[in-house]
Amino acid sequence: MLLLLVAAHHSMADDGYRLWLKYDLIQDAAQRKAYLNAAKFIAVSGNGPVLQSAARELQQGLKGLLGQAVPMASAQGKSGGIILSVEPTANDSGGALGKEGYRISTDKNNIKITGKTEAGVLYGAFALLRQLQTRQPLEKIALASTPKIEYRMLNHWDNPDGTVERGYAGSSIWKWYELPERVDPRYRDYARANASIGINGVVINNVNASARYLTAEYLQKVAAVANVMRPYGIRVYMSVLWAAPKTIGGLTTSDPLDPKVRQWWTDRTNDIYKAIPDFGGFLVKANSEGEPGPQDYGRNHADGANMLAEALGSHDGIVMWRAFVYKANSNGDRFKEAYEEFKPLDGKFAPKVLVQVKNGPIDFQSREPFHPLFGAMPKTPLVLEVQITQEYLGFATHLVYEAPLFKECLDSDTYSKGKGSTVAKVVDGTVDQHRISGIAGVANIGSDRNWTGHPMGQANWYAFGRLAWDHELSSQAIAEEWTRMTITTEPKSVRTIADLMVKSRDIYVRYTTPLGLHHIMGESVHYGPQPWLAKAGRPDWTAVYYHKADAQGLGFDRTATGSNALSLYAPEVQKQWGNPQTCALDYLLWFHHVGWKQPLSTGRTLWDELCYRYYTGTDSVTWMQKQWAQVKPNVDPELFANVEGRLQKQYKEAVWWRDACVLYFQTLAQQPIPKPFSPPTRSLDEVKSLVEIYQLRK
Amino acid sequence: MLLLLVAAHHSMADDGYRLWLKYDLIQDAAQRKAYLNAAKFIAVSGNGPVLQSAARELQQGLKGLLGQAVPMASAQGKSGGIILSVEPTANDSGGALGKEGYRISTDKNNIKITGKTEAGVLYGAFALLRQLQTRQPLEKIALASTPKIEYRMLNHWDNPDGTVERGYAGSSIWKWYELPERVDPRYRDYARANASIGINGVVINNVNASARYLTAEYLQKVAAVANVMRPYGIRVYMSVLWAAPKTIGGLTTSDPLDPKVRQWWTDRTNDIYKAIPDFGGFLVKANSEGEPGPQDYGRNHADGANMLAEALGSHDGIVMWRAFVYKANSNGDRFKEAYEEFKPLDGKFAPKVLVQVKNGPIDFQSREPFHPLFGAMPKTPLVLEVQITQEYLGFATHLVYEAPLFKECLDSDTYSKGKGSTVAKVVDGTVDQHRISGIAGVANIGSDRNWTGHPMGQANWYAFGRLAWDHELSSQAIAEEWTRMTITTEPKSVRTIADLMVKSRDIYVRYTTPLGLHHIMGESVHYGPQPWLAKAGRPDWTAVYYHKADAQGLGFDRTATGSNALSLYAPEVQKQWGNPQTCALDYLLWFHHVGWKQPLSTGRTLWDELCYRYYTGTDSVTWMQKQWAQVKPNVDPELFANVEGRLQKQYKEAVWWRDACVLYFQTLAQQPIPKPFSPPTRSLDEVKSLVEIYQLRK
Repeated sequence: MLLLLVAAHHSMADDGYRLWLKYDLIQDAAQRKAYLNAAKFIAVSGNGPVLQSAARELQQGLKGLLGQAVPMASAQGKSGGIILSVEPTANDSGGALGKEGYRISTDKNNIKITGKTEAGVLYGAFALLRQLQTRQPLEKIALASTPKIEYRMLNHWDNPDGTVERGYAGSSIWKWYELPERVDPRYRDYARANASIGINGVVINNVNASARYLTAEYLQKVAAVANVMRPYGIRVYMSVLWAAPKTIGGLTTSDPLDPKVRQWWTDRTNDIYKAIPDFGGFLVKANSEGEPGPQDYGRNHADGANMLAEALGSHDGIVMWRAFVYKANSNGDRFKEAYEEFKPLDGKFAPKVLVQVKNGPIDFQSREPFHPLFGAMPKTPLVLEVQITQEYLGFATHLVYEAPLFKECLDSDTYSKGKGSTVAKVVDGTVDQHRISGIAGVANIGSDRNWTGHPMGQANWYAFGRLAWDHELSSQAIAEEWTRMTITTEPKSVRTIADLMVKSRDIYVRYTTPLGLHHIMGESVHYGPQPWLAKAGRPDWTAVYYHKADAQGLGFDRTATGSNALSLYAPEVQKQWGNPQTCALDYLLWFHHVGWKQPLSTGRTLWDELCYRYYTGTDSVTWMQKQWAQVKPNVDPELFANVEGRLQKQYKEAVWWRDACVLYFQTLAQQPIPKPFSPPTRSLDEVKSLVEIYQLRK
Repeated sequence: MLLLLVAAHHSMADDGYRLWLKYDLIQDAAQRKAYLNAAKFIAVSGNGPVLQSAARELQQGLKGLLGQAVPMASAQGKSGGIILSVEPTANDSGGALGKEGYRISTDKNNIKITGKTEAGVLYGAFALLRQLQTRQPLEKIALASTPKIEYRMLNHWDNPDGTVERGYAGSSIWKWYELPERVDPRYRDYARANASIGINGVVINNVNASARYLTAEYLQKVAAVANVMRPYGIRVYMSVLWAAPKTIGGLTTSDPLDPKVRQWWTDRTNDIYKAIPDFGGFLVKANSEGEPGPQDYGRNHADGANMLAEALGSHDGIVMWRAFVYKANSNGDRFKEAYEEFKPLDGKFAPKVLVQVKNGPIDFQSREPFHPLFGAMPKTPLVLEVQITQEYLGFATHLVYEAPLFKECLDSDTYSKGKGSTVAKVVDGTVDQHRISGIAGVANIGSDRNWTGHPMGQANWYAFGRLAWDHELSSQAIAEEWTRMTITTEPKSVRTIADLMVKSRDIYVRYTTPLGLHHIMGESVHYGPQPWLAKAGRPDWTAVYYHKADAQGLGFDRTATGSNALSLYAPEVQKQWGNPQTCALDYLLWFHHVGWKQPLSTGRTLWDELCYRYYTGTDSVTWMQKQWAQVKPNVDPELFANVEGRLQKQYKEAVWWRDACVLYFQTLAQQPIPKPFSPPTRSLDEVKSLVEIYQLRK
């Protein structure tokens, strides 16, 4: 006789859709009561759409957290409620509040959320909810915050056909074939999530852009998306195809100095603003990886960017021009190429142009030195571009919390205006006193129910938004905050999970690319290890171009005896990385070709240290599994099993990386695997054939 | 002052995930009580995994429908319960029960569900639940049913990278990068849905196959999927790349007569059965649209198929060899090519081989005459392949219920063994007494929360399964059943929705390809109308190849004065379609080139009839919108809005099709748009540029 339990699958399990806006009932009755005493009503003065969003979110959040509906009411003569108020000319006695800043204060026994704009109040509403979600007291609450960076953007690499370049969470959330008649309710939840972390702009399409979006047909669709974003303080931007005037405009050229081309872009831009009055602007990938651009006509990036800035005219929009450019050159150093093309253009860009620079000089590797353009273009506002989607960080099966990676770049000192000229301060405009500033994250969002594939990937979206708002927040604080909001408020589990998260990126680096190795992943699909890759579509798409392993040693000499890329940095930075004896080991092979038997500061030789990191990094995944196992009692079962399964996969892949790399480098180092580690139980040929499976027909 | 309602979005709205297995509480208390009286317990004799699935599903379903848990118990001395029992040797007094058949009977005041196999009982459990879901009485219940076709298959055109060829519902549900460590709980819900409609096999990958699945690495992944399918009576099959022995086997040839190649396939097949003991077999697209195949080595399809059959050896597996082949030939007729290649091979295929034939001779057009191979290969079991995904039926924005299309083919009389030799009876094996039989539907399933993009697309998955089980069911009955289970049980709404569904396919045909027009859709992406398409990658990928419009008239002459494709059919069929005066208008332009001014049986000239159908077909979408509006009070609001939005899009696209086709054909017919219809308000150039937008970079 069978005794089966009914699997009440759909009603109980947490499928991750709600992200960090879960608003589950607070179990502690005393705490709930205390909160209820401070949330007897919600009063809103004004009826703008963004303010309505703030009120609606507060209602939804409080109802969930407190278990009862909080009524909308007039504040007249009442106390114990929440008042939302836009006060454009408020006397900033408590410090300057920017146009998107918020203040939460206690006023006559009410909690007052104020901002100079509706958006400010919306951010304040989310901040207040966050206090409840993380179980902070509301008594005498006094918070004020203004974003340090103006344009806080998600970049979607989403294609019109619904695929997502480097996406690992299903297909695009944008349903272009359905729009504009059918507007997926999911767009609103996407907007809510972004607004809750302060993101105020989204580039809806891939930088390898289709001209479709510039047609009247697609503008209607984009406008329908913009209509959903607008009440959440989010503006829509577009990646544009440089060749569009030819592709869809019927012109014979896309030369930015051609009057017909200029007129075409001006006309299209006016069309866009007719459909989307608060359109944000353009993102451009030009003359990069085969994309067309102004150089096709002998013009430079500034010519191109300025032409688009002119097309924007008096509209309130910007141009973000990407600096991710490099030419195929087997004897060159890709590290230097963006710098060499862009540095000379500093001061030549129109005021509406920002140059968008990746965090590092190569391409979103698990660890890169900061991009040498930061600090090198004082006359140009630079957008920092980071990648949230885990193209080089284990797709959706590796738990890699990225805040430490983002922070590492943001906190790097460029020394451009002396000590303290961090990338963060270059980007937020304080180093060079820029009027505008921006930061962009390449989204990890897809149509998967839980948005990000790996449930813990949600933390990366969250952390990006929080750091875009305030780059001084710590990785640890963000991890704890997110965990409380998303997974559990049980203190020990919060600590365990946050600790796991904060250490995860370093662990990933150790078992994939320790000591400054980079770009040794599988060809094209970028999955798994392929350090032996010597032939590819371009020399700078191989692995050997980057690691330069030979019988003597390992690493790319970027000092004066090599490519001299190091010279692109300020002298203080050169000093920090220039000497292989003192260079931090995390960056060693980025700048130096080091002998296999060279002793390092750890006391081990390069070879032994390499093996040590691959082996201990892999072992650390076992540690991650054990940590995760500990939190089981306090985590939703479906979520627990989901992460547990992915950690198993992560361990298997860590072993794969370790085996592939030590076996391959061993053929050159000719050294044994040091004790106490055991040599891989499979052959180099076996691991070689493994990565090739993932390069078969897609 | 704002007064906002809390949007209790997540808990109340129906997101479609549960498909037709919703099990919502029956609101009528009297009916619930009556059902409860007949479901006081569930007793299961046996503990096989499929039987467990049956019991679990009953528990889950009854708990939802009746609002209380039904206990598992022993039936000993009890009455008023449900007994599940496998009775392999039961005396079939009530008629022969096949190995997957079920019987639901009343036995000593208990409801007894019996089958010769566990699968039979599982199907019976779903049948019983269906009775409750559609509010049928349980008193003296006596049902018995056995599937008419043995292999009831879904074919997934899912690629390893997660894209789905011709998929319009997000990405693939299969998460290959996560498998086998992480097994998405969704796989189980997919299996439940399939089992509930009798589907017992799934081909997990695209016929344009990657060799990946044959590697040990991927076999583990496929095995993990098979482990989830098995308890639901579902076997896993694989599409294979013909060139695999070269691609991954290290051989220099894929010649099916080469002993090394034969050995390689035998070895791989043995590997597969080691990992998946109940593996179902292979699906092959060979020498078709650029895919490799045995003809590359001067062998024929039978050589290839028989080699795979030999590799299957004593394993219980089959080979499904697709007949979808055609050579690029601008003067030929694609209609005839599969016939010409396969008909001569009848009798040459090994016993484990089935030839898989699309419903019509071209490619899943909105209406096709049945494929001339049906009835023409009496010595070979033929699998009927239909397309559930709406490649040519409006993607996920057109409401097209496909049961009438499937039925039209199934009910077509081939006359191969005299009158009554329908396609259905050829396929189920009764016409030619085949031991095995199969039917395959190309899935419309993706990772979208509601599985099929268009919520009404779920009905097509459902209808395919129900017809695969019993091709004698009517389209109307299936539509009503599905509607009751999925949308509403309110009788008037059920009638309205079912009526809308049943008429929808004919409406679609009218506004896209009336009178037997075919293959005039947009190039490559197959979106929108492009009847003027005259140049493409191949001549038989254009539109003009098929409609042959000229100054005189319209249509493809396939009689003896033309390609003579009609001669491939039995004389009775030739007679039915051979005379343009008597040929059903729905098939007219499939077989005849008809003068523009030729009067038809409707009293209108061809040109006027063409316009009449385009215009009235388009107007019918307005009717569909009105019908849908009527059911609003009885339909979940989110679902209602979803379908409403898509119907708006459908109307816009119907107008697009109408305008494009009448404007283009008018350039040749040189006739005015007949009264009372108004000529399109846009130019031919405008509609031409519209379709091109959707062919820009994807």
